[in-house]
Amino acid sequence: MPHDIAIRELTENLIDERFLETLGHLSSVEGLDVAGARNILRAQKAIGLRTFVAFDGETIVGSATLIVEPKFIHAGGLVAHIEDVVVHGDAQGRGIGKALVEHATSEAKKAGCYKAILACTEANKPFYEKCGYRAHEIEMRRDL
Amino acid sequence: MPHDIAIRELTENLIDERFLETLGHLSSVEGLDVAGARNILRAQKAIGLRTFVAFDGETIVGSATLIVEPKFIHAGGLVAHIEDVVVHGDAQGRGIGKALVEHATSEAKKAGCYKAILACTEANKPFYEKCGYRAHEIEMRRDL
Repeated sequence: MPHDIAIRELTENLIDERFLETLGHLSSVEGLDVAGARNILRAQKAIGLRTFVAFDGETIVGSATLIVEPKFIHAGGLVAHIEDVVVHGDAQGRGIGKALVEHATSEAKKAGCYKAILACTEANKPFYEKCGYRAHEIEMRRDL
Repeated sequence: MPHDIAIRELTENLIDERFLETLGHLSSVEGLDVAGARNILRAQKAIGLRTFVAFDGETIVGSATLIVEPKFIHAGGLVAHIEDVVVHGDAQGRGIGKALVEHATSEAKKAGCYKAILACTEANKPFYEKCGYRAHEIEMRRDL
């Protein structure tokens, strides 16, 4: 992990405009404000989702979310889904994304998960390979 | 949907040996018994997971699980993850898998999800294409 970066679990009071701006580097956050994001965090926490944010000093520079799914198969095995890994545009190239993926993966292991999975583009595959992941299946999508 | 098949949401009392046997066509259920599966269902329901089972009369012939993930992006958009689609070996080739995927996808839409995603092998890709899904990204995996 870069020595000047700290990773913390997201709490309501840590959500600020900079967090929204960071997510904006992943996908549209149009219509989302700080109060709205705090409501979403409450809904996420109620069902066990956890978001980790990377800080450079007091400034959010990245985010990643962890879902732990209890399955029937593998004798009630737990599977981690890592979602929405993003680094702010002004903080890229410093190893922050890798630190976030490693942190979320480590938390998945601590939670007892037997595997962690995530979906990525062909372009991001080498990045996740550096994080210890390997191409496994095809992610299929249907727009609703 | 095949006219002789009914899909119901799984409840504790519907879990029987046949349900476990059905899951066994997907992956190992070694070490899992009916009481254990009921405990897992309680844990799943506590965090909003829903499992749908296909019945032929009183006999379970298939299963699929739905996770609804609230995201920050897309203004708090909901994403459906469809997991563990399986049809019992003695009931394959009757359209039950497709009926389960369509049911779970329809429930995802009713829940307000803007997309549904799932991971599958290359061999199962044509099946999911028939269910209206398209190949989108790569599923990466790391064993923990």
